[in-house]
Amino acid sequence: MKRQLVLLSLLTGFSLVASGQNDKPDLAVVRKIREEGLTRSKVMETAFYLTDVNGPRLQGPGFMKAANWSKNKLAEWGLQNAKLEPWGEWGKGWALERSYLAMTAPYYKTIIAVPRAWSGGTNSLQQADILYIDESDTTALESYRDQLRNKVILLHQPFAISPSFNADAKRFTEDDLVKMSKDESAARGDSSYRSLIAAMRTRNAFNQKMRKMAKQGGALAILNTSQLSKDGTLFVSGDFANAASGVAHDELADLTISVEDYLTLSRMAKAGIPVKLELDVKTKFFTSDTKGYNVIAEIPGSDPRLKDEVVMLGAHLDSWHSATGATDNAAGCSVMMEAVRIIKTLGLKPRRTIRIALWSGEEQGLHGSKNYVAKHFVDPAAPNKLTKEGEQLAAYFNVDNGTGKIRGIYLQNNTAAGPIFAQWLEPFHDLGAATVAPKSSGGTDHVSFDRAGLAGFGFIQDGIEYSTRTHHTNMDTYDHLIADDLKQASTIVASFVYNAAMRDQKIPLKKTL
Amino acid sequence: MKRQLVLLSLLTGFSLVASGQNDKPDLAVVRKIREEGLTRSKVMETAFYLTDVNGPRLQGPGFMKAANWSKNKLAEWGLQNAKLEPWGEWGKGWALERSYLAMTAPYYKTIIAVPRAWSGGTNSLQQADILYIDESDTTALESYRDQLRNKVILLHQPFAISPSFNADAKRFTEDDLVKMSKDESAARGDSSYRSLIAAMRTRNAFNQKMRKMAKQGGALAILNTSQLSKDGTLFVSGDFANAASGVAHDELADLTISVEDYLTLSRMAKAGIPVKLELDVKTKFFTSDTKGYNVIAEIPGSDPRLKDEVVMLGAHLDSWHSATGATDNAAGCSVMMEAVRIIKTLGLKPRRTIRIALWSGEEQGLHGSKNYVAKHFVDPAAPNKLTKEGEQLAAYFNVDNGTGKIRGIYLQNNTAAGPIFAQWLEPFHDLGAATVAPKSSGGTDHVSFDRAGLAGFGFIQDGIEYSTRTHHTNMDTYDHLIADDLKQASTIVASFVYNAAMRDQKIPLKKTL
Repeated sequence: MKRQLVLLSLLTGFSLVASGQNDKPDLAVVRKIREEGLTRSKVMETAFYLTDVNGPRLQGPGFMKAANWSKNKLAEWGLQNAKLEPWGEWGKGWALERSYLAMTAPYYKTIIAVPRAWSGGTNSLQQADILYIDESDTTALESYRDQLRNKVILLHQPFAISPSFNADAKRFTEDDLVKMSKDESAARGDSSYRSLIAAMRTRNAFNQKMRKMAKQGGALAILNTSQLSKDGTLFVSGDFANAASGVAHDELADLTISVEDYLTLSRMAKAGIPVKLELDVKTKFFTSDTKGYNVIAEIPGSDPRLKDEVVMLGAHLDSWHSATGATDNAAGCSVMMEAVRIIKTLGLKPRRTIRIALWSGEEQGLHGSKNYVAKHFVDPAAPNKLTKEGEQLAAYFNVDNGTGKIRGIYLQNNTAAGPIFAQWLEPFHDLGAATVAPKSSGGTDHVSFDRAGLAGFGFIQDGIEYSTRTHHTNMDTYDHLIADDLKQASTIVASFVYNAAMRDQKIPLKKTL
Repeated sequence: MKRQLVLLSLLTGFSLVASGQNDKPDLAVVRKIREEGLTRSKVMETAFYLTDVNGPRLQGPGFMKAANWSKNKLAEWGLQNAKLEPWGEWGKGWALERSYLAMTAPYYKTIIAVPRAWSGGTNSLQQADILYIDESDTTALESYRDQLRNKVILLHQPFAISPSFNADAKRFTEDDLVKMSKDESAARGDSSYRSLIAAMRTRNAFNQKMRKMAKQGGALAILNTSQLSKDGTLFVSGDFANAASGVAHDELADLTISVEDYLTLSRMAKAGIPVKLELDVKTKFFTSDTKGYNVIAEIPGSDPRLKDEVVMLGAHLDSWHSATGATDNAAGCSVMMEAVRIIKTLGLKPRRTIRIALWSGEEQGLHGSKNYVAKHFVDPAAPNKLTKEGEQLAAYFNVDNGTGKIRGIYLQNNTAAGPIFAQWLEPFHDLGAATVAPKSSGGTDHVSFDRAGLAGFGFIQDGIEYSTRTHHTNMDTYDHLIADDLKQASTIVASFVYNAAMRDQKIPLKKTL
C-alpha cells in the first residue's frame, strides 16, 4: 500500500513523506547544483580527455593511462586521498600496434577488422588463402588439422542481416516508465547478464581451443564476426581469461571483422571462388605491473559524528578496446567526476565523506568493484557479515547505462529506499527524472555492492544507441555522447550523493538481509 | 476527369479501360511469369556474381569485369547479339591496390578509410603528422603552403552526428502512395539530382585545387569525410573529371574516413594534442582501353511487322568503388537480367524485339545511356528530331532505386501512359504494386530517354536503406539486398516488358513533344 502511494506520487507529481524522516532535499542547494551542472558543466571536457585523448581503456596499460589522468584531475579539483588502489593480480597487459586486413583477389577490398583483445599478431605483412570451416565443434575441427598451414581461418557463424525498420536510438516513453515503476517482480536483473557472460565464456573456450589447434597447425589468423554487427559497426571483445587461466603470448591473431565482409568471404568460400587475403597484425604483451587498480578520491565529511561514514559513487573506467568506450563507460565516469566537481566547486560541506571510485576489470567480470567490496566491506571470516567499514557505507550509486539522461533509479528490490529516492527526484521531474523502479538492474558494479548486502543502486537511463551501436563497439566514440543528457545526469547524481551525505540516517539496507 | 477515374481505379482496385485499346495483360502469361520469377528465381545468384564475385564496378576496369560476365551470362541464357558496345572515350582507368590508415600516437587506432575514386597513392608505408586546415576557400589555403611537406591534411568540414531516432529502413505507406498518385506537379524530379551533381562538382573543383597545391607542397595525403557517414558507414565517391578534363596520374592520396574518426582527429588537432598517423595507399592508373562501354543483348521480335521496333529495359552496371554496389545498382541489373531470363526461359515469343542495356558511367553523369540515346535515337543534325531507330523505340524501362520491391511506376508526366500501366499493374496489386505516379523521377538513366522525347520510365520502389546506409557507401554489399523484393521486381518488369512488346501500338509519347 505504501509503495502504491509512492508510485501514485510519481505519476501525479505529488510530494509524499513516506519514510521515517522528511527527505525533502534542500532546494537552495539543488538550485546551486543545477546551475553549476547545467550551465557551467565540464562533463564533455572530461569525456574528451577520457576518450579521444587517453584512448581505449582496456584492462591493463590502456586503462592505466586514463586512470592516472583521472586521479590527477580529481586531485586538481581539490579531492583528497586521490590514488590508484590495487585490487589484486590481473596478470596480463596488451596493446594493439598494427591492424591491417584486406582481400587482394579476386579484387582488392579493405576489410573492416579489429583484433580481439589479447590477440596475437602475424609478425609482418602476410599473404594467405582462406580456410573456411563450417563446423562448430572441436571434434570436427580435428579433420582440418593438416590444412591449416599459412591459412586464415574463417569460422562458420550462421548469421544474416536485415534492414533496420526500427530506429537505432530510443528513449523511454511515459508508458515504459509507468510500467517500470509498477514492475515489482523479484530480483532478476542480473540473470540476463549472467547468461550473457556464460555464453561469452563458452564461446571464448571454444575459440581458445580452436586458436590453439590452429596455431599448432601453422595457421596465420582466425576471423570471426558478431550477429549484432552491421553497417560498419563491429562488436568486439576478447577472452576473459586472466592471470589464473594463464596467458599465451604467442597466441594466434584473432580478428573480428564486419558482418558484411564476413558474409561475403563465407559465400565466396562456399562457392569455391578463390580468395586471397593480406594482413599485418602486431600486438604487444606487457609483463610488468600486471596488477589491477581502481581510481579512488574523496571529499572528506564535515560532521565529526558522520565523517567516518561514506557515500560512494562510481563507474567503471575500463573499456573494450575497439574504440574509446565513450558510452561504455567514459560517460558514467565523466558524470561521476562531474558530480564530485560540482559539489567541490560549490564549496558544499557534506556531513559524510563522499568517495568516488572509477573501477577497472568491469568488462571481464566486475573485478575492480568485486575485489574492492571484498577487501573493504565483507568480513573475510564470515562472508555474510559486513566489516565495520561495510557498516559505515551509507550508499553506493553507479552510472553505467550509456549516454542517456537519467529517468529515475532502480531500487534493487530495496523497498525502504523507494520513498527517499522519490523525494530526491522531485526537483528533477522537469528534467525527465521521476521514476522509482522496484526491480533490480544488473550487469555492472553496483551488483558487487548489492550482492554483499550493501545499499548499491544504479540509475535508469534512456538507452539511446547503447545496445544497437555503441556499447562494446568500434563506434563507441565521443561523438556518440549527448552533452545535454550527461549534464542532466551529473546534476542529478551530485544531488543524490549530497543528499545521501547529509541525511541523518544511512540508506536502509534490504529487509531480506 | 479521366485521370481521376484512373486514380480511383487504383485506390479501389477497379479495372478500367481508359486508353484506346484494351490493355488487360494476358493473365495466362502473367501466371507463368510469376511462377518463374517468384519460385525459380536466379536473381540472387546473378546479384552474387555481380557483387561478391566481380567486385566494385567503378567506370573503367572494375566495370569491365562485370560487363564481360554479364554479356556472357546473357548469351548463355540464349539472348542474341550480346555485346559490349562502346559509347565514347572515357579516358581513364583506376584500381585500388592497397589502403591502410591508422593513428599511431597518442595511441594506436585503425581508421576506417577508403581512397576516393582516382586517388593517388603514398608509394609506401609512411608516417606523418596532421595539418588541420580550418579554411574552406583556396585563397586562405595559400597561407599553409610552407607547412605542407610530409603532412596529412585534414580539411575542416563542420559536421556533427546525432543518434538515429528514425529507422534507417523505410517502405512506402499506403498514405505515401496515395499522395504520390495524386501529385500532378510538373516535371521536377530531376532538379534535386541536378543540384546534388552541381554541389558535388563544386566540392570536387575545390578538392582538386587543394590536392594540386598540397601535392606541389609535398603533402602525403588529404582526408575528408561526409555528413551522411555514421556508425562505420562511409559515403565515398570521387571526381567526375573524365578524359576531357585531363587526369593527373600523380594525384595526391585522397581518402574519405569515417565521420567518427574525422571528428576525433579534428578535436585533437584543435586541442593541440599531437597526433601521428601511418598510411599506405597504392592505386593503379590504366591507360589502355579507356573507352566506355554498355552491355547490350536482345530477344529478337517474332512479328515480322513489329520486330524492328524495340522495347528496352536497362539499369546501370557501374558503381562507386567502396563496396560492391549492391543496391546501386547490381540490384537493378540483376532484376533486368532476371526479367529477360524469365521471358527467354518461358519460351515467350514477344512481337517486338526486347533489348536489355546495362549502362556504364552513370555515376559520373549518365554517360552510357546519354551517349547511347544520342548515337541511336537522336538525329545528329536536329537535336529535337528522332532518328528512324528512335521512332521505332516502343518504350524504355529502368530500375535504379535500390533493393526495394516495386510499388508502381512514375509516368514522367506522360499522362497517356497512365491508363496502360494501371492495367499492367493490376495482376500485381497483391504484391504491393499498384501506384501510377504522374510526376517525373530523376537521377538515373531513363532521364536520358525522357530528355530526348522518348518514352522512358522508372519504377517506384520502397526505399529500404538506400539513402541512409547503402547507395554510394562502403556498406553497399550483397547482404543489404532483399531477395523477396528483387524477385517481385523481376516478375513485374518481365511482365511490363512483355506487355510493351505485345501491344499493338508503342507506348504513346508525351503530348508536349
